Amino acid sequence: MAAKKRIAILGASGYTGAELARLLLPHPRVEIAILTADRKAGQSMAEVYPQFAGAALPRLVSLDDVDWAKEAVDLAFCALPHGTTQTVIKALLNAAPQTKAVDLSADFRLADLDAYKQWYGHDHLAPELQKEAVYGLVEIHRRRIKVARLVANPGCYTTTAQLPLVPLLKARAIDPAQIVIDAKSGVSGAGRAAKEATLFTEVSEGMHAYGVGRHRHMAELDQEFTLAAGRPVVATFTPHLAPMNRGILATIYVQTKRKRSAEDLHAILEKAYAREPFVQVLPFGQVPQTRHVRGSNYVQIGVAADRIEGRAIICSALDNLTKGASGQAVQSMNLMLGFPETMGLEGRAVFP
Amino acid sequence: MAAKKRIAILGASGYTGAELARLLLPHPRVEIAILTADRKAGQSMAEVYPQFAGAALPRLVSLDDVDWAKEAVDLAFCALPHGTTQTVIKALLNAAPQTKAVDLSADFRLADLDAYKQWYGHDHLAPELQKEAVYGLVEIHRRRIKVARLVANPGCYTTTAQLPLVPLLKARAIDPAQIVIDAKSGVSGAGRAAKEATLFTEVSEGMHAYGVGRHRHMAELDQEFTLAAGRPVVATFTPHLAPMNRGILATIYVQTKRKRSAEDLHAILEKAYAREPFVQVLPFGQVPQTRHVRGSNYVQIGVAADRIEGRAIICSALDNLTKGASGQAVQSMNLMLGFPETMGLEGRAVFP
Amino acid sequence: MAAKKRIAILGASGYTGAELARLLLPHPRVEIAILTADRKAGQSMAEVYPQFAGAALPRLVSLDDVDWAKEAVDLAFCALPHGTTQTVIKALLNAAPQTKAVDLSADFRLADLDAYKQWYGHDHLAPELQKEAVYGLVEIHRRRIKVARLVANPGCYTTTAQLPLVPLLKARAIDPAQIVIDAKSGVSGAGRAAKEATLFTEVSEGMHAYGVGRHRHMAELDQEFTLAAGRPVVATFTPHLAPMNRGILATIYVQTKRKRSAEDLHAILEKAYAREPFVQVLPFGQVPQTRHVRGSNYVQIGVAADRIEGRAIICSALDNLTKGASGQAVQSMNLMLGFPETMGLEGRAVFP
Amino acid sequence: MAAKKRIAILGASGYTGAELARLLLPHPRVEIAILTADRKAGQSMAEVYPQFAGAALPRLVSLDDVDWAKEAVDLAFCALPHGTTQTVIKALLNAAPQTKAVDLSADFRLADLDAYKQWYGHDHLAPELQKEAVYGLVEIHRRRIKVARLVANPGCYTTTAQLPLVPLLKARAIDPAQIVIDAKSGVSGAGRAAKEATLFTEVSEGMHAYGVGRHRHMAELDQEFTLAAGRPVVATFTPHLAPMNRGILATIYVQTKRKRSAEDLHAILEKAYAREPFVQVLPFGQVPQTRHVRGSNYVQIGVAADRIEGRAIICSALDNLTKGASGQAVQSMNLMLGFPETMGLEGRAVFP
Repeated sequence: MAAKKRIAILGASGYTGAELARLLLPHPRVEIAILTADRKAGQSMAEVYPQFAGAALPRLVSLDDVDWAKEAVDLAFCALPHGTTQTVIKALLNAAPQTKAVDLSADFRLADLDAYKQWYGHDHLAPELQKEAVYGLVEIHRRRIKVARLVANPGCYTTTAQLPLVPLLKARAIDPAQIVIDAKSGVSGAGRAAKEATLFTEVSEGMHAYGVGRHRHMAELDQEFTLAAGRPVVATFTPHLAPMNRGILATIYVQTKRKRSAEDLHAILEKAYAREPFVQVLPFGQVPQTRHVRGSNYVQIGVAADRIEGRAIICSALDNLTKGASGQAVQSMNLMLGFPETMGLEGRAVFP
Repeated sequence: MAAKKRIAILGASGYTGAELARLLLPHPRVEIAILTADRKAGQSMAEVYPQFAGAALPRLVSLDDVDWAKEAVDLAFCALPHGTTQTVIKALLNAAPQTKAVDLSADFRLADLDAYKQWYGHDHLAPELQKEAVYGLVEIHRRRIKVARLVANPGCYTTTAQLPLVPLLKARAIDPAQIVIDAKSGVSGAGRAAKEATLFTEVSEGMHAYGVGRHRHMAELDQEFTLAAGRPVVATFTPHLAPMNRGILATIYVQTKRKRSAEDLHAILEKAYAREPFVQVLPFGQVPQTRHVRGSNYVQIGVAADRIEGRAIICSALDNLTKGASGQAVQSMNLMLGFPETMGLEGRAVFP
Repeated sequence: MAAKKRIAILGASGYTGAELARLLLPHPRVEIAILTADRKAGQSMAEVYPQFAGAALPRLVSLDDVDWAKEAVDLAFCALPHGTTQTVIKALLNAAPQTKAVDLSADFRLADLDAYKQWYGHDHLAPELQKEAVYGLVEIHRRRIKVARLVANPGCYTTTAQLPLVPLLKARAIDPAQIVIDAKSGVSGAGRAAKEATLFTEVSEGMHAYGVGRHRHMAELDQEFTLAAGRPVVATFTPHLAPMNRGILATIYVQTKRKRSAEDLHAILEKAYAREPFVQVLPFGQVPQTRHVRGSNYVQIGVAADRIEGRAIICSALDNLTKGASGQAVQSMNLMLGFPETMGLEGRAVFP
Repeated sequence: MAAKKRIAILGASGYTGAELARLLLPHPRVEIAILTADRKAGQSMAEVYPQFAGAALPRLVSLDDVDWAKEAVDLAFCALPHGTTQTVIKALLNAAPQTKAVDLSADFRLADLDAYKQWYGHDHLAPELQKEAVYGLVEIHRRRIKVARLVANPGCYTTTAQLPLVPLLKARAIDPAQIVIDAKSGVSGAGRAAKEATLFTEVSEGMHAYGVGRHRHMAELDQEFTLAAGRPVVATFTPHLAPMNRGILATIYVQTKRKRSAEDLHAILEKAYAREPFVQVLPFGQVPQTRHVRGSNYVQIGVAADRIEGRAIICSALDNLTKGASGQAVQSMNLMLGFPETMGLEGRAVFP
């Protein structure tokens, strides 16, 4: 058997870092060689996440203490906060040009440097790298991901919305000017940082919208929808916080074009995803539940007709930490390192 | 002080029955004289709901064992399942024509007998009573409720959606053909009947839509929106189940008319509800959380602009058991019996 | 009617502060005259807690900006963190000796200054005030509370454990050397401060013990149990965090003395609390649920026999923010200001 | 590679059945050949549990329709309700004596037929099979399980309590007459049957004990503790329902013997489990959280000293559906079929 590939996880103390470790530990073709976490440097992973008690994992180290040239990792996952990653990856790839990288932040998702500046308020810090970065939604950009050195892992909300909408926009089956995306997310998407707004008491037993009218994930949606439709698309998108750990449910309202029915939309999606291992289009009229993909890399999509003719309601469900972040990233890794795409990702949802 | 009015609660073993008892027990002008619950007849309320231990409440009796003429209750709340209520109330009002009734089921909400038959699959069983029934959304139909003998308490979803939309439709400020209502409800709306679908394990830690494309609450929305707009209105409405006990959040997507802005819509709502004791329009751009109305009769409404010109996003939050059911019913009772409208309903949300 | 008494809430931005405001707003004999919250000074209460939208409440002010002599409040609730309160109350009572105070922190709970120093690691900062402070568990110390100027409101865990155990210790019915208290608390007991340990993701969907073997609440238990038993008592006590907002359930394991049976213990408690408005002893063999006292000032206690002869299992349930903190404090206020003890506290649990 | 072993799951529509399918689907040495579920016969597993959409699983069939002789399955998991299993397994093993069986119900756990009758109220229906049944707690009875034809999988509560207590009883390190087990369970332990008591609204946001003083799991504890201690042991045990899907936390109060300290108990457990793959003894003084074993086959145990000399507090945490049921069963299967014991069970907890 081939030697295992050496993997680094930058930002291992966050939730997406922990999810990467969970998925990679039993992966037969890789070994986790480096875990970085600046504030927890020196600790074991089990001290930070007790579920890893006894696991064969390296100690957490400070990012600055890693000699990337010497370590020669095959692939690095970068699970650092938005805004810090451009310089980190630039330095890493400069020091070790053979290393590949999957970035889970938003730092390399926008191909348009102006759009980046507009949404994030500052110039892109690694514009030359942005040129080679590939947007990592495997089902849409698989071929380019296979040969990429740097993959920008998509956002969790945008993955949930793109998987049903991109094929419909490509098929010119829906009106690009009439898309409403009402998305509900679990709390883990907010990360492990201590904030009043995500305390148990502030989040349990209730629901609310946030970022109404303007949310940074929109930039990604605009880019990918426009690409798919071949014309500018601006969708309405409202994120909500739901009292659950994991899961995103996007309820999407569309207007069909050219007398298409909701059943036609369903047929387009069924065909588009017939051979995809992780995207499951439910029978027409059935809708998914986030709990049925909890902890898994699967996406479930349902299509139903509205009682108003020409309108359809599409529900899309995934686990924000798995297919919405770390599972997706491992899926890209599998392609980038030449492994079977589903390796280490076949696990079904933990339900109940 | 005037003698206390005698009140009956039919269906006291359900959640809306229990919520009525919670609200009425400390009410200074009424006494709970009769509690019916067929399957629990003979038990004390504290056996069925331990929170009433020691409370001065009558034992549960079977509906058939009540002699309405003799009991001469002033007002009966009917918290029975849909479909059984038309005959129950008919019998009650025949036996005791002076008694007033507030029905919490859907049985008297639709003025159009054909619409009733279409949505509920059978003929209305008390068409003559339907004529006198008043739809009990106090903020919209206060004057008629004051003089009504029979009030049909609105549904929880529909109350959440009507309060922000009716004033906007009346003002011709939004396009009636472009309304999307995405509603998220707590589980108590499903009642206390044992069903697999509402087990803790099937509902916690996840979200899903249900009744997609067609849900009986739509009939009520159609009726009231059409009334408000002065022309037929059919809205898109999708209910979701959220892992929480109480609360409904409706996220509503509208298109303004005649170059109105989202701020204009906000101004219309602020004006409409400036003197309403229970409807709170938040400052423009802020959105409500269901937890901040939990256990209370208040409704909180927020309006924000979408980034797409001419579109606004409206969020409306209430407690489905209080303002969405039993609180609303008590508010009507206060009007029907000549009490101050807010009596017994001033309590603020139990948060956290 | 007599003029309303003027009340201050110090630390109104915390959860116990908000709960005080919820309970006092509809109280017929008081008005909330002052709300302090240093970091939120200048904001309205509705900005900090949206459930108070539209309520007639003063703006939040900084503690230092209050002139206690001039304000002449009748009673101040002090809901500040442990350790800061001794100096605050000392200054307040020096400036306004006629003002009464109920302190919700642990600062005045321990009569023994040495015990205080041992558990809290520093000298008591107001030893002369400690002499006059009365431990505020109404059911045990009612007479002294009525005439107190300074009441130390008991802790939530200790209230839950004391109410069933004090009468049994007084009656010499159980072995004081064999008490095990296993307590489960909702998350609101941890307050509103942003901490990783109380994030939704870290607390939901799981349970754990904390402070095992040594927890500051033990000092209070020792003091009151020793007082009740007339001999030194040291109990085993383990607190746990449960994924719920409110509620404490204490499961207490005791060994009877002098051949008492579990039924005998039940009889002692029934007799002790026969006339208490807020303590409800359930029928023998039944056990309480925290949800049935949620948001209320009631305590429910159940007693069952173990299958091992001479052992009994006692369950005690209350809402940590109400009877375990702010409700208890209002109960003391009612006594201190000469109001009926139950005024403003009769509300039943919000369930479901 | 050797042909895959053929596996049957009887009662596949329950939660332990679904958990077995989740664990066995990716298992490299077995194939799921038969799934039975009488009321759902004819449906696909994905219809009953949508997380299995697209999985290569046989349709659900009625138990009576299986010809065990012809099917020649290598091992059958029996996940049927208590009381029905004795006759089912008897018939199965009569028809196919080469088939092995792991029974997840309580039907074969008690070696003493009198004890069975006493706790379950009727005679054992397969007493001859009971003789060969091996109690399936792998860490305690590994050698006998390896050669067993019929294994009685332990209960979830009892597994949580036995793993820390059996080594301490064997070592004569604790007083067998002074054991108190306070256990908190997630709701999935109650199964998928529709009951009012496990509705979301009745279980969320609160805690309560049940089966106080007498619970059937005690019979298993008595048997295994007595075996370990070499003398009769009767422990105090109280189960509680906690608002979470998965997880059991047992907080155990013990009295040491022969001047042992809590540290000594910890050392005994560390030594006992030093080479066990699934039992993790945390550093002294640390306590486990159920969420850190969620969805995994691991058990985490912590030991802390009480402030009362000679007393220790032990916390034990596992996932009731995995190590507490189906994971444990697969662990036994691995031994019975000659596979590596940890195969298919290495996954770490899904946290958050």
